[in-house]
Amino acid sequence: MAAVGAECAPPEPMSALTTTPMSTTSVRWERDIEEGGGGGLERPLLRRRGTNATSQMAVVGANVCPIESLDYEIVENDVYKQDWRSRGKLQIFHYQVLKWVLALLVGSIVGLMGFFSNIAVENIAGVKLLLTSNLMLQNRYKMAFLWYISCNAVLAAAAAALCAYIAPAAAGSGIPEVKAYLNGVDAPSILSPSTLFVKIVGSIFGVSAGFVVGKEGPMVHTGACVASLLGQGGSRKYGFTWNWLRWRSVLLWRTFSTTAVAAMVLRSLIEYCRGGKCGLFGKGGLIMFDVSSQVTSYTGMDLSAVVLLAVLGGLLGALFNFLLDRILRVYSYINEKGKAYKILLTVAISVVTSVCSFGLPWVTSCTPCPAAMAAAGRCPTIGRSGNFKNFRCPPGQYNAMASLFLNTNDDAIRNLFSGGTDGEFGVSTLVAFFAAVYSLGLVTYGIAVPAGLFIPVILSGASFGRLLGRILGALTGLDAGLFALLGATSFLGGTMRMTVSVCVILLELTNDLLLLPLIMLVLLISKTVADCFNRGVYEQIVRMKGLPFLEIHGEPAMRLLVAGDALSGPPVAFSGVERVGDVVDTLRRTAHNGFPVIDGGELCGLVLRSHLLVLLRSKAFVLLRSKAFAVDRVKTGAAEVFRKLAPFDFAKPGSGKGITVDDIDLTEEEMEMYVDLHPIANRSPYTVVENMSLAKAAVLFRELGLRHMCVVPRTPGRPPVVGILTRHDFMPEYIRGLFPGVLPE
Amino acid sequence: MAAVGAECAPPEPMSALTTTPMSTTSVRWERDIEEGGGGGLERPLLRRRGTNATSQMAVVGANVCPIESLDYEIVENDVYKQDWRSRGKLQIFHYQVLKWVLALLVGSIVGLMGFFSNIAVENIAGVKLLLTSNLMLQNRYKMAFLWYISCNAVLAAAAAALCAYIAPAAAGSGIPEVKAYLNGVDAPSILSPSTLFVKIVGSIFGVSAGFVVGKEGPMVHTGACVASLLGQGGSRKYGFTWNWLRWRSVLLWRTFSTTAVAAMVLRSLIEYCRGGKCGLFGKGGLIMFDVSSQVTSYTGMDLSAVVLLAVLGGLLGALFNFLLDRILRVYSYINEKGKAYKILLTVAISVVTSVCSFGLPWVTSCTPCPAAMAAAGRCPTIGRSGNFKNFRCPPGQYNAMASLFLNTNDDAIRNLFSGGTDGEFGVSTLVAFFAAVYSLGLVTYGIAVPAGLFIPVILSGASFGRLLGRILGALTGLDAGLFALLGATSFLGGTMRMTVSVCVILLELTNDLLLLPLIMLVLLISKTVADCFNRGVYEQIVRMKGLPFLEIHGEPAMRLLVAGDALSGPPVAFSGVERVGDVVDTLRRTAHNGFPVIDGGELCGLVLRSHLLVLLRSKAFVLLRSKAFAVDRVKTGAAEVFRKLAPFDFAKPGSGKGITVDDIDLTEEEMEMYVDLHPIANRSPYTVVENMSLAKAAVLFRELGLRHMCVVPRTPGRPPVVGILTRHDFMPEYIRGLFPGVLPE
Repeated sequence: MAAVGAECAPPEPMSALTTTPMSTTSVRWERDIEEGGGGGLERPLLRRRGTNATSQMAVVGANVCPIESLDYEIVENDVYKQDWRSRGKLQIFHYQVLKWVLALLVGSIVGLMGFFSNIAVENIAGVKLLLTSNLMLQNRYKMAFLWYISCNAVLAAAAAALCAYIAPAAAGSGIPEVKAYLNGVDAPSILSPSTLFVKIVGSIFGVSAGFVVGKEGPMVHTGACVASLLGQGGSRKYGFTWNWLRWRSVLLWRTFSTTAVAAMVLRSLIEYCRGGKCGLFGKGGLIMFDVSSQVTSYTGMDLSAVVLLAVLGGLLGALFNFLLDRILRVYSYINEKGKAYKILLTVAISVVTSVCSFGLPWVTSCTPCPAAMAAAGRCPTIGRSGNFKNFRCPPGQYNAMASLFLNTNDDAIRNLFSGGTDGEFGVSTLVAFFAAVYSLGLVTYGIAVPAGLFIPVILSGASFGRLLGRILGALTGLDAGLFALLGATSFLGGTMRMTVSVCVILLELTNDLLLLPLIMLVLLISKTVADCFNRGVYEQIVRMKGLPFLEIHGEPAMRLLVAGDALSGPPVAFSGVERVGDVVDTLRRTAHNGFPVIDGGELCGLVLRSHLLVLLRSKAFVLLRSKAFAVDRVKTGAAEVFRKLAPFDFAKPGSGKGITVDDIDLTEEEMEMYVDLHPIANRSPYTVVENMSLAKAAVLFRELGLRHMCVVPRTPGRPPVVGILTRHDFMPEYIRGLFPGVLPE
Repeated sequence: MAAVGAECAPPEPMSALTTTPMSTTSVRWERDIEEGGGGGLERPLLRRRGTNATSQMAVVGANVCPIESLDYEIVENDVYKQDWRSRGKLQIFHYQVLKWVLALLVGSIVGLMGFFSNIAVENIAGVKLLLTSNLMLQNRYKMAFLWYISCNAVLAAAAAALCAYIAPAAAGSGIPEVKAYLNGVDAPSILSPSTLFVKIVGSIFGVSAGFVVGKEGPMVHTGACVASLLGQGGSRKYGFTWNWLRWRSVLLWRTFSTTAVAAMVLRSLIEYCRGGKCGLFGKGGLIMFDVSSQVTSYTGMDLSAVVLLAVLGGLLGALFNFLLDRILRVYSYINEKGKAYKILLTVAISVVTSVCSFGLPWVTSCTPCPAAMAAAGRCPTIGRSGNFKNFRCPPGQYNAMASLFLNTNDDAIRNLFSGGTDGEFGVSTLVAFFAAVYSLGLVTYGIAVPAGLFIPVILSGASFGRLLGRILGALTGLDAGLFALLGATSFLGGTMRMTVSVCVILLELTNDLLLLPLIMLVLLISKTVADCFNRGVYEQIVRMKGLPFLEIHGEPAMRLLVAGDALSGPPVAFSGVERVGDVVDTLRRTAHNGFPVIDGGELCGLVLRSHLLVLLRSKAFVLLRSKAFAVDRVKTGAAEVFRKLAPFDFAKPGSGKGITVDDIDLTEEEMEMYVDLHPIANRSPYTVVENMSLAKAAVLFRELGLRHMCVVPRTPGRPPVVGILTRHDFMPEYIRGLFPGVLPE
């Protein structure tokens, strides 16, 4: 097993070899050596040992698409260098200003979108609930139920139709896709304008339809879409190409940090609406749980209760992930059958949800109002907000279940988090509500509707926490609202496992730093408990979709392999000056996205498929009898390239897809001409020696955000590049499959 | 200038060459080629073109020391691999638990230290101020002044003596050093136990002595020391070596994130002290500025005032940095003269400070108490806390200057930040106080005392902000306390330029997320304004000390150079099996810390000096007639290495310094034996090809936290390593000096 670097004389010590019977050197001979490079399209479908059949395709929406990698490496070719050298101070200043303008713009647009999404939801759901409650006040219960259930079904069907027919990639949370994108996975249509549109409208319909879904995840996806579209100058497909915004896509990530601006826009708009100028828009601010006045010293009993809650939350969170995985697998069979099936499934879940949310309050008995609340006129409340919903109850009583279920999800959470109302929700109400939202959250995520996971997880966590608080009430002095908050925390830790982000989100929800230690404790425990069973829900979805996500900690087996082990075969290379016909041929024949340029046995650089296509389209060719005459004429050719093409032409196109080889239209004569690849070749590609440990090569690949990594030979006398490693070559499934039986599982 | 990659035929287009008359290819011949590698000790002192004379030494404390780089790269040698392979599940679990234990331990210790530092300062300063005010109540003013000034001078002298005689590295803030350490600069004694001790005690004395210094910066340094000492198993020099804590130093950084635990410890201790159990310890919590009740909507006039404040704050911050730089240069002459001079300078500054803080209230006239405050018995206050200090004033009046100056710095900030007290401090008081703290802050930082910059900057910023608030009072509805907070923000942005950290710190001080947009706006403006003039104060100090800090954005000239350009000459290399005498000789002759191991013309790995020394000390040698007999016997030699040495022996020693070549004691016979370097050679060093762009090589070097980067030749037939790049080879001064007159300045 100690074959790494074993070829250096003298070989490694015997003591290290005795542990395993077989060294990888001998194993290496057994591998099937592939002809052709690292692409995927020309491969046989049969899976062979040593063939990289992993993750070349991903499920985006409901379709399986080939996926590419993003390229954070600076392509240091002559075009770039000339551009860089020619940039004056004014241009650099201009560029800095643009950066800020874009940041501001993205922030403002996202803020506006968040606001209008909120206002739309509150108005649509408000009208729906208001009419329902009016019908009930007239004792027309059947009519009320019919109105409620059909309203929900229509909204659900509309959301599903949008998703099914316009943008399948808009279904679900969107966070897994954005995570993968930031990791460097460029799956088609994840950030396209149609996805953006469906994500917003579908999310409004889905939330208004009363589904147990959030709009937080979709909002994250929306922001990423906006930033990406603006950053790449709008999609070409939709003609949104503003030249002043066509930026190098490398800078895209910068703009993500600007969502801070969004909060300001959102807050000022909410401030504007407080006076009732926005229809049924409620007065709920951004802070859901204001506990500044809570006690901050805890007894040992309090802490024990919190630890118990965290452990149980972790267990239930892990169970949630396990069940969600199973349900999504079942749903994928249904969704694959066709668009109509998607809509049917969505409507079915909508009906179940409606029955639950209308039926459960129906079977819940009324509770007398607390005397103080009744006296203050705060119980029961008839309007939309307030804790104590009157639902078929006589005066002076309220229906606890209706306060939670016949409400928007935001208001339900606010009610659960509310402090100083320990006795408001009874044990049976909380048990029923918890069971309902936990199951509904599970069955709802996979339907064809933009569906965030935060709200279902927080809802079930908060009801679970409040329930535990009720049960342990006698033992601890903690408030029921605090219990609900910590329950939500434990569920977030147990399902999402993102400790820092969840901490920040809860900090924003509560606006109280003093709660941080308790929140951190609960998160740490619930995450640790849940990690014993399975992985986080988003990672699970990323894997299920087949997106090639590069983990921070790679596969342990990588330590036992060298870079050369992961190669599939020699790369397809070009000379510095190539016949146009040969280039076109190669582009058609392979699916590779990077080609080494080799001149006289030396690695001269790496050209990208997209740059080659731009070059071919520009027709910067020269007529030559053969390559031997190249040097002089080709200098003219290079000048031709600089004359015909600006650096902007090589910028990454928007999500409307760039040109393909089929878009290139060349005459017979042009095919016989020669093209100089030097001006567009990245002269400094990152390289590793073939006997470099694969684990360390992976660190280099991930830290620098590479797309192609050239592997160079250790010994002279061989081609200057023995292969190219791409993202797919670092996937755990592939690594583990390389030497079956030898590598540890 | 387009020489990068120019050797590939055909050369670059003529159009790109016309901009400069001379290509670097021709320039390259003019360089002095150095013999010997990248070390510093064997170099002539005369500066020559192409010789890397930059930053090989740094000012640590008052001494100039050679500095080394940290190495975040995993040394994948056979010893490591064998260790990695032999680790069972239990050991991995053990390791995970240890990680958490250490994190908890570091957090708790830092929390305790923070608490005891607080309690010591409040008690020492409290006794001092109480006695002074008692003497004044008895009208013994001269006696009071004498007591006050001599108390301060004695405390100052004690702090300076500690710094001068025990740990010169403990002077100053410590943040520049920690920044540099995290960047990979391993300057000796920065994190040693003596530095830790002096930093804590000296900081207590310095703050108690009434200097305008903070204990925040020193506290950061203290935390880094604690984590480093625990992480490396205690310093060997002081015998603190606990085996169960001897960790691989690579993990050190993890432990920094644990300071969160510290806050909990600190808070619970403060909670404990509230009952008056801790002497004169005040009841000041961690939150200085509680503005939850402030208005959050601003008029255009308010915003204009805030923008004006931010611009002025940025200007004054940049001026602060400029003046500080000049003053530090003057001080360094004084401090170099000897330890007594250091103490004298400190005492002199102490006297000036005492005169200011006692004298200014003396010449300030008394102000009548606001009626409401007087009625509530809150004005004047005689005890230690409270806003309205009685200082030689008749009953019913207070001395505004004394409230600010005859107080601990924390209390002064709290008074300045206090809301709802707009009229408390008059314009003249604020002008005088601002001028005093701004100047005192400048002259105090360079003295031989642990001195944080946060407090002087916040104090002067807050008084400036409150002053501006007074002046613009009629135009805006903003509170004077809010003005003070924003003034402090603008000064922090103008001097430190660390937007995110400052944001977080201010968020913690105010515990109000709603203030964030205003704070961000002010920070952004003040930083942008100040950036037009000079760099941040910490970067300035890092540069002045000569610490080789790797910037995120490297020198622009790097784009025009290739990796080979920055090399100083061929490296000093070893064969896989070397004569012991030759190894010892080479270690004595050079100061290099990494040596390539070359076998039969192939790069076999890289050995570190520290690992070679451990190997030599273990005497894992074999007797050979010559290298030719190596293979068989040396296998025995490698087995010898595994028998005699555990992976732990190669772990980075604590800050008590590792072994040097002079510690190696070998007989004549042993010097003639042979040693096998394979087991300790890093088999996968990161390499770049010599014609890789230097800018991209720098990205690789910085992102992966490397110490040595091997440069391999582009063409066959040359030695497998043409040179080694280290941190010093990426320093802007060196890069700019490489091709004088050709590279842009």
